[in-house]
Amino acid sequence: MFKKEVENWFKGLQNEICAALEEEDGKGKFKSDIWERAEGGGGDSRVIEEGNIIEKGGVNFSAVHGPTPQKILEALKLKKADFFATGVSIVLHPRSPMVPIIHMNVRYFEMSTGVSWFGGGIDLTPHYIVEDDARYFHQQLKAVCDKHHSGYYPKFKQWADDYFFIKHRNETRGIGGIFFDRLSENEDFTLRQRFEFVKDVGRKFAPIYRHYMQKNQSLPFAKEHLDWQRLRRGRYVEFNLVWDKGTKFGLDTNGRTESILMSMPPEANWVYNYQPKEGSPEKQTLDLLKKGIDWV
Amino acid sequence: MFKKEVENWFKGLQNEICAALEEEDGKGKFKSDIWERAEGGGGDSRVIEEGNIIEKGGVNFSAVHGPTPQKILEALKLKKADFFATGVSIVLHPRSPMVPIIHMNVRYFEMSTGVSWFGGGIDLTPHYIVEDDARYFHQQLKAVCDKHHSGYYPKFKQWADDYFFIKHRNETRGIGGIFFDRLSENEDFTLRQRFEFVKDVGRKFAPIYRHYMQKNQSLPFAKEHLDWQRLRRGRYVEFNLVWDKGTKFGLDTNGRTESILMSMPPEANWVYNYQPKEGSPEKQTLDLLKKGIDWV
Repeated sequence: MFKKEVENWFKGLQNEICAALEEEDGKGKFKSDIWERAEGGGGDSRVIEEGNIIEKGGVNFSAVHGPTPQKILEALKLKKADFFATGVSIVLHPRSPMVPIIHMNVRYFEMSTGVSWFGGGIDLTPHYIVEDDARYFHQQLKAVCDKHHSGYYPKFKQWADDYFFIKHRNETRGIGGIFFDRLSENEDFTLRQRFEFVKDVGRKFAPIYRHYMQKNQSLPFAKEHLDWQRLRRGRYVEFNLVWDKGTKFGLDTNGRTESILMSMPPEANWVYNYQPKEGSPEKQTLDLLKKGIDWV
Repeated sequence: MFKKEVENWFKGLQNEICAALEEEDGKGKFKSDIWERAEGGGGDSRVIEEGNIIEKGGVNFSAVHGPTPQKILEALKLKKADFFATGVSIVLHPRSPMVPIIHMNVRYFEMSTGVSWFGGGIDLTPHYIVEDDARYFHQQLKAVCDKHHSGYYPKFKQWADDYFFIKHRNETRGIGGIFFDRLSENEDFTLRQRFEFVKDVGRKFAPIYRHYMQKNQSLPFAKEHLDWQRLRRGRYVEFNLVWDKGTKFGLDTNGRTESILMSMPPEANWVYNYQPKEGSPEKQTLDLLKKGIDWV
């Protein structure tokens, strides 16, 4: 059964990613928290805290099913249907302000009415934006996309710019990446081709993040950089709690709160109306938190 | 003009409260940040940081007007109207985990169609709930309410329980207080009587909070209490960004972000699935974060 195949592949991906991150971190170990959903299915939340490089993060797998929550039915203009959803969700908050925050989600959704699709994305939130690092990230994602369709990267890159946007700050969350949803079978793609694309995205996560862990973890930093990191984490919280559709949907529909909010940083700060100095690295970063930058 | 009278009274209240808090704090001074709203009106955000007792807080006044934002028109089932809104909003985050977080809002709203009303509330969020302190708070609020109508306190207390509720945690934000909205002229009250009630609520804020500042600021605390305070502040962030209608409305309608988010704590932490030990003061507090407790 296709959905079981996808579920198993995602479960394997979670294992692979956890192993790769533990290896690179050298100290932090994922703890597994297996949970069941009353209405059907469940998940395995893997949480890492107090690593060498990763301060707090989660690599969550879930496969849930049952009667479709009212909110999804409304969005899909359906009266009544069962659903199945499986996916892997990751957010990692590094200790060093020189290592970026990363997020990935890959998911598969299937309705008893017959429709089904893949969705997901990866985006990077450097506390300090370094152009070479940003270019590398987008080059990696573009390569994954180009392998499947030349139209994927431009479309999904713009989608990420629009999605990971903190409207009330008029700032992007970070340097974006790719975001896609409702990738279903159509005249150009089979569902299996969509799945192969999602697999390639998923496989790319660990090598990409290991690149930054290796390259940036030993860069020196001072208290002022940590202060800025805390403020940027505050923005991350604002995005996730105010704008992120997945978070809102999960909290609205009685999802598992601790798994949804594993994306929260270990520590976030707020200072009233903080304005970085002209010419400072903080100001340079702020000036790059906008949509439509062609990093490649 | 009634609305000008209300606006001026609120402006005076802001001054009084800032002066009282500075006197009690002994070190922190409010900085005034005066802003204008492109569509009409503006405000004065007064922010205090790094006080003796108050670590971060704001006492905001605003008086705005213009064409009614689409979202309000929809809620009021109106096609087109101008609006006027004025109010004072306060959130104070104390340095000591033994001093509670406090919030107050008093507001007046008037539509060009003729309808007008008062709204507001005060609620207290102790990091550690002490029953005597909770009783004192509710007694003070009950006294203010009872002076105006015997039905006010029971109704507004329950309204606060329902409003200041973190649904995805199944916890109240704190010990509640009073919350009220749409207090307009009717067969029982004139608009001026409603105003007198709101004035009494506003006047009560400074004495109530000074009581806790005096009584609790010198209580001893250790790192474990600060850790818990940081977690509770995380819950405060969750409530304000996910559930607070005023915050959501402000961020949705292009309100002044820094004034809206002055409610954010200076530092908030998240730990995955933190469970306080049975019998600990943290667990006792958690057990009291529920609706329907009769504190009086």
